[in-house]
Parts: sequence; structure tokens; C-alpha cells
Amino acid sequence: MKKALVIGVGPLNGLGGQLCKKIAQNNFEVFVAGRTIKSLNIVVENIRQDGNKAKPIVVDTTDENQIKNMIKEIGSGLDFAVYNVGNNTPGKIIDMEPSYFRQSWESGCFGGFLFAKEVIKVFLKENTAGTLLFTGASASLRGKSNFGAFNSSKGALRNLAQAIAKEYAENSIHVGHVIVDGGLAGDRLKHRVSDFDERVKDGKLIDIESVTDAYMFLYNQNKNAWTFELDIRTSKENW
Amino acid sequence: MKKALVIGVGPLNGLGGQLCKKIAQNNFEVFVAGRTIKSLNIVVENIRQDGNKAKPIVVDTTDENQIKNMIKEIGSGLDFAVYNVGNNTPGKIIDMEPSYFRQSWESGCFGGFLFAKEVIKVFLKENTAGTLLFTGASASLRGKSNFGAFNSSKGALRNLAQAIAKEYAENSIHVGHVIVDGGLAGDRLKHRVSDFDERVKDGKLIDIESVTDAYMFLYNQNKNAWTFELDIRTSKENW
Amino acid sequence: MKKALVIGVGPLNGLGGQLCKKIAQNNFEVFVAGRTIKSLNIVVENIRQDGNKAKPIVVDTTDENQIKNMIKEIGSGLDFAVYNVGNNTPGKIIDMEPSYFRQSWESGCFGGFLFAKEVIKVFLKENTAGTLLFTGASASLRGKSNFGAFNSSKGALRNLAQAIAKEYAENSIHVGHVIVDGGLAGDRLKHRVSDFDERVKDGKLIDIESVTDAYMFLYNQNKNAWTFELDIRTSKENW
Amino acid sequence: MKKALVIGVGPLNGLGGQLCKKIAQNNFEVFVAGRTIKSLNIVVENIRQDGNKAKPIVVDTTDENQIKNMIKEIGSGLDFAVYNVGNNTPGKIIDMEPSYFRQSWESGCFGGFLFAKEVIKVFLKENTAGTLLFTGASASLRGKSNFGAFNSSKGALRNLAQAIAKEYAENSIHVGHVIVDGGLAGDRLKHRVSDFDERVKDGKLIDIESVTDAYMFLYNQNKNAWTFELDIRTSKENW
Repeated sequence: MKKALVIGVGPLNGLGGQLCKKIAQNNFEVFVAGRTIKSLNIVVENIRQDGNKAKPIVVDTTDENQIKNMIKEIGSGLDFAVYNVGNNTPGKIIDMEPSYFRQSWESGCFGGFLFAKEVIKVFLKENTAGTLLFTGASASLRGKSNFGAFNSSKGALRNLAQAIAKEYAENSIHVGHVIVDGGLAGDRLKHRVSDFDERVKDGKLIDIESVTDAYMFLYNQNKNAWTFELDIRTSKENW
Repeated sequence: MKKALVIGVGPLNGLGGQLCKKIAQNNFEVFVAGRTIKSLNIVVENIRQDGNKAKPIVVDTTDENQIKNMIKEIGSGLDFAVYNVGNNTPGKIIDMEPSYFRQSWESGCFGGFLFAKEVIKVFLKENTAGTLLFTGASASLRGKSNFGAFNSSKGALRNLAQAIAKEYAENSIHVGHVIVDGGLAGDRLKHRVSDFDERVKDGKLIDIESVTDAYMFLYNQNKNAWTFELDIRTSKENW
Repeated sequence: MKKALVIGVGPLNGLGGQLCKKIAQNNFEVFVAGRTIKSLNIVVENIRQDGNKAKPIVVDTTDENQIKNMIKEIGSGLDFAVYNVGNNTPGKIIDMEPSYFRQSWESGCFGGFLFAKEVIKVFLKENTAGTLLFTGASASLRGKSNFGAFNSSKGALRNLAQAIAKEYAENSIHVGHVIVDGGLAGDRLKHRVSDFDERVKDGKLIDIESVTDAYMFLYNQNKNAWTFELDIRTSKENW
Repeated sequence: MKKALVIGVGPLNGLGGQLCKKIAQNNFEVFVAGRTIKSLNIVVENIRQDGNKAKPIVVDTTDENQIKNMIKEIGSGLDFAVYNVGNNTPGKIIDMEPSYFRQSWESGCFGGFLFAKEVIKVFLKENTAGTLLFTGASASLRGKSNFGAFNSSKGALRNLAQAIAKEYAENSIHVGHVIVDGGLAGDRLKHRVSDFDERVKDGKLIDIESVTDAYMFLYNQNKNAWTFELDIRTSKENW
């Protein structure tokens, strides 16, 4: 059984949680990595109730040693890895603490570098021809007022992902970047916006399971027909 | 049984031909449209041997009346349409006949407009929430020496496709654009390049069936998670 | 005295007219080309009142022979050429006559091809190291609802311009593309929008003379530091 | 006399040094900021020999307090600021120390945030309608094998710059981003590549003075016709 690793897992009904569930359904042992063991356990438990395999790993994605230990813990057989870290970090530049701007990059991009480096090393060592996917956003492609920190870290991650894609294509490693353009119909927004149910009803929030299908679609591509990037949005999104 | 229409079908072992075959396998009656009845018949015959349904339609994609007649002939039930017309048209600007430049646009973009207009009208009339996909290329995104005509017509088609995507999203019509970045391992190149077999062996040509999977993936997306654009290339492509 | 040619000249207080005036002030004999002799004469007369040199040429930019005759009429010494043709062509795809869509491309892109071809041929024959600039728009870069025709023709022109830029760089010919993002504070809008004066007062319309400065800036670049593209918008533009 | 500040100044015959010289010639008192007092003094001395005004400031661009002190030292009257920090940082991801990747971002992007924040605050406080420009590269727009760190930090800076441009346009602050696409004919490369003279002779290196003209061009634009971005390359560049 092949192994998969998803980092940046929060609530079960979020992109990270549902990615784990979907990947496990596709016959992987899934390593469910994130900061909060309680959340991870809920995801792992749910996957096991499906009759599938999962293990939680508590990790700070911006800590090299923790990333290295995580990879060691997983052992051989890793074939699919997803970097799903990096929440929106709104705010105006003149009001923003440098530590806030830095933190946005640390989790949004630097952790992606640490993760990618160790994942690629395993793929190369085991000659795996594995798949490494990154979660992007419309912010990956441009800057916008009030979102300088998020735009910057997402732009950093995208260019990094594209460089890695080109750098390890010769090793049959597939690297992809999914542009999630809009809010997700998951627990994060549910607890943050008062009109969540209305937005879902109006089709204004992205269906998470469909997004996980896109990740599986990318994973399943063979190396004679790889996609680096695709965008996902609802029919109601103004773009 | 839903109906699908693919325009720009040449040899069986080409993107158009294989799209028809793949779509038919997904339980559509497929209308196989192109310029040469002989080629269309081979595709149709092959699909029928699979036990699936197909009909040929000879059509000049740059002729409004022929497009309208084709749509009439198909009748109700159209749910999936692909504009796959437009070959590469190399040449330097100073050496290029205006008629050649024009023809590149006529088939590469104008036909796409005529096609999209009639397809969208049917989708709207029948309230179908259908899918309309366009075949693009790396040429869609930038200009390059010796490819001014092709770059121009592909850029024209891409902006058109994006405008249509935004214009009819509110009608639940999904419009997508597939960036095929590189040569296809099909009959067109087979008859044009002497080192075809070597290129296939070296993994330098795009696997056509995988491309058709991408079209089906786009078709199957629900309107809470639509992709407008994805790129496809081999691991050997220099991009 | 070097010669310059601006095609797509309408009212004196428009981008074409002011480009002619500005270029003439920079010590060129300017050929003022457009469809309406009356408009051209007003521009030419104004330039002559400045003490500078200008000649009108009535031309249909989509007619190869007229383009060729224009180039012949200008004779030797052409060093600067601007393609400034192509008005906005709004409208929904399903309501649009094919002839309207076609006309948008004919003037927006095909004329640009005819023009570029003849201009480049003169530059090459005279070994001029000339400059060829195109007027673009935000529409050059993406599609938008209700602007499919304009987006498409502008996207076609941009990819063409980029291909030409790369194709003739080795001949020291500088090709540029100016993205005019927003309405111009000129006579076209003045006669079309009722709140023109208010928009000017609010700084919402682009200052035309500043745009002409950008064209001169591009012209004056030497071949060790060429710009292909720059964007121009007001501080009030929402982008 | 207005004040200008250029940060990221190295050798006199480099982009930073020549920017200071050119800006000083345009009637500014120029603050010449960088890490090495010896280099700064050479630039300052040269500007003074021109009969113009300049002062050196030693500063680590990644240190908030030093940036704040620098801004204090300059006092009132700042109208033009340039962030010119961030050298190329080549290397493959799997061989790269995390500290190296981080450092690339610290100087390439984080310093730009600290700088922009303090500069914008001064512009707002003094109601200056100032100009803030960033030096970009082709790396700003995409990822490329062996340049993951540099691509990532430049992409981060570009999205940040675009966000700032939109965020403070309403305050009449002009923000721009110059894409320098290729090597510069300056002292950095002179000391690093053995065929420098040949490359200069062949026109393969960008003329620095022309680049400084572009920065002045951007500075001089009025708010009814601002450019956010322009690219600069030689006629020999393959793009």
C-alpha cells in the first residue's frame, strides 16, 4: 500500500481533512499532519471508520527538524504529498507588524520549501516518481489592496512550486499547483461568516469534495500528460 | 442519452478522434464533426465497434450556416461541446500572405466564435447547464518568433473563451480552455516528423488518451468547483 | 528629418491625434493616417501651426493595397510607426453578428498584421533599426463578460506584437505594446458619456499627453534596454 | 530640494549606484543606502563631484529598527524611494540550506516590506504623493529550474508591490515595478563572468543608464497616467 502525506490539516470538514479522506479512499495509507492533535485525531478516526488507513502527525511546518522527523516517521513508500498550509492574512501594509508579515511567509512559503525539499529527497532516494501538490489561491497570481502579506506569500509559493516542477521533471516527479479561487464551503468559513448557510445555498462557496477530486486527478496523470496548474471556482465567483 | 459534439476531428489517432471515442465511452451519443467525411467515418466506425453511438457531420467551421445546420441536425439533448479546431501555422511575418494569417484566425478563432454562439444558444434554450471546452496551446499565452499567426489566433481564442466563461457562468454553463503544451503522440505528427517513434519512446510527445481524460474531468466538474484552465505537457517539455 | 507614421488617427484630442502632435514636436515629419480626411486635416493643420511637419493619408487599415500604397507614399526615412487602431466592441456573444465579431478583429488585429508587415519590410530594407508600437488595453490580457469581441481581437494583437518583437529583435527593430487600462480624457469619450467633465475632474480618465510621453519614452530607448510592454492607468482605476 | 532614497546600493557602476547618480542629476538630494560604507562613499563622492547632493546611510534592509532610523535621519521632504535589494540566489532545492532560502526572501522581499511600510508612512504623513519603485526580474513572473529561491523571493516582492500599488493609489502614491530581464553591464557581472567584455560588445548586457532613465520616467508620470510595470531587456535576450 502506497503512502500519502497531507500537511496543513485542520477540521475534518476542511480542504486538508477531506483531502486525507479522499486519498485514503483511493487506497493509500494517509499521514495526517497539522498543528493540533485533536483535529488530526478527528480526521484519522473518520478515515478509519471508512475502513481506511491513517495516522496523525503533529508538526510545525516551519521547523526543519520536525519536518525531517515527520518524513522519517513515515518511512518508505511515500508517493503522494500535499502542502496545504497557509491561511489568509489580511491587513494594510502600514498597519502590519513585521512579525505578522513574516509569519504569513513562514507558513505560506518557507514551510513549503522545507516540506518540498524533504519530500523530493525521499522521492529521489526511492526512485518513486511521486506527486507533490501545493494549494494556491487567486492571491498567487496578483496583488490586491489589503492582502499584501497573503498575496506575497502565495506568489512566493507559486514561483517556488513552478521552479520545483521544472527542476525534478527529469526525475519523473510531478509537481502541481491548485488555484483555489474563492471561499470553501467548510468549517473554517462556517465559524467565521454569519451568512455561511446562505452563501452555500447560493452556490457561492467552493465544494470541497470536488476540489479533492482535482487533486486526485492530478495525482493520477501519467508523465506524458502532466498538469502543473489548474484553477477552481464556483459559477458565482466574480473573476 | 445525452449528446456531445466535437468539432475539429481528423484522424482516429488524433486529439479530436480520441475525444470522440472517450466521450462516447462515457455514455454520450457523439457527433463527430470535421472537414473530411473519410476521416470522420473511420472515427464513427471505431466508436460503433466499441458498442457506442456516433454520427459524422461534415462541416466547415468558419461557415455560419453550416454551423447552424449542424446544430439543427443534432437536435435537442446537447450537453457537451468541444472546439478542437486550429492547426499550427508557422512562418515569419514578412514572408506571410495576408490570406494565410487570416485563415489561421478563421479556423483558430472565428470558427470558435460561431461554434460557441450556437452551442450556448442551445444550452440556454434547453436550460442544459452544458459544458463547452476549447483546445488551446502554449501559443495561447504568448508570442514567439516564427509563430506570429498561430500565437495570435490562439491568443484570440483564449480571451474569447474566458469572456464566454464569465458571460454564461450565471446560466450554469461551464466553459474551459485546455493548454496543450507540446506535440501530441498522434497521427498528425507521425506523418510529419521522421523521428516520431524516437520521440514517443523518449516520452517527448503528449499521450492523447490522458488529454481526453482531462476533458472528461472538466466535463464532470459541478458548478461549485469549475476549472477554467489547465495546462498539459510531458515531463520532458522545456517550459 | 526622420519620418513617423501613426495609423488610427481620429479627433485631434484623441490618442492618435495627440501622438502625431507629440511626435512632430520631437522633430519628425509625421504621416497622419486614418479613415476620415476631415479629422486628419484638423490634426495636420494643428501640427503645422506648431511649426512642425505633417501629412494626412486616408487609408483603410484592413486593406493590404492601401497599406502598401501608404508605405510607398511615405518613401524612405520611416523610423517610427504606431498602430493605434481598434475601438472597443462591446456585446454579448449570443447577440453578436458574426460580421461584427469579424470586424473587431479586422481592425483590431488583421490591420496590425498588414501594417507591421509593410513597416518591418521598410525597416529591414533601409536597415533603419526603427520602432513599431501597438496600442493595447487591459482587454489584451484577459476575457471579460460583454467584451468577448474586443478581448479577443486585443489578445490576438498582443500575441502578434510579442511574436514580432522577438522575430525582429535581431534586426534591431524595437517592438512595443502599451496597455492603456481605462478611458482616455479625449473627444471620443467626451461625446459618448454624459458625466465626462465629472470623470475628468475626479481623475478617472487617463491623461492623453502623458500616454504620448510613454510612446516617446519607448521610441527613445536604445537596443540595450528595450521595453516590450508597459501599462498605464489613473490612480482611480480599479484593477 | 526634494529628497530621494535608494536602498540596495553597491558599486558605483551598478544599478543602485547609477540610480543615485541619475536621480541626483534630476535635482534631488539623494540618500545612498546599502551595507558597505566604502561602496556608498564612492557613490556619494562621485555624485558630489557632479555638483549634486548625496549622503550615505549604512543599513541592513532586513532590520526594522535600522530602516526606521534611516527614515528618521532623512527627515522631511522624501518624495522618491527605490527598493533595489536582492541578488540572484541560484541553487537546487534539494541542496539548499533553509537559511539560504530564507536569506533570499529576507533581502529580496521582507526588506521590501519594511522599507515600503516606513516610506509609505512618511508619504502619508507629509501628504507627499511620492513614488515608490521596486526592482524586479524575469524571475518575478515564473519559476525556473535552479532558481527556486530567487524566483520565490522575487515573486513575493512583485505581488507585494502590486498590493501596495492598489492600496495607496487613493493617496496619490505611485508604486511601480521594473522587470529587469537579463544581466546588467555593471561591476557585479564584470567581476564574475570571464567573457564580460565580449558580452558587452555583443550587446548582451543591459545598459544601466537606460534602466535609470526608466525609473525617472516612472517617477515623472502624473497620477492620471501611471505605469505599474515595465520590462527591460536587450535586443539579444532570448525571452
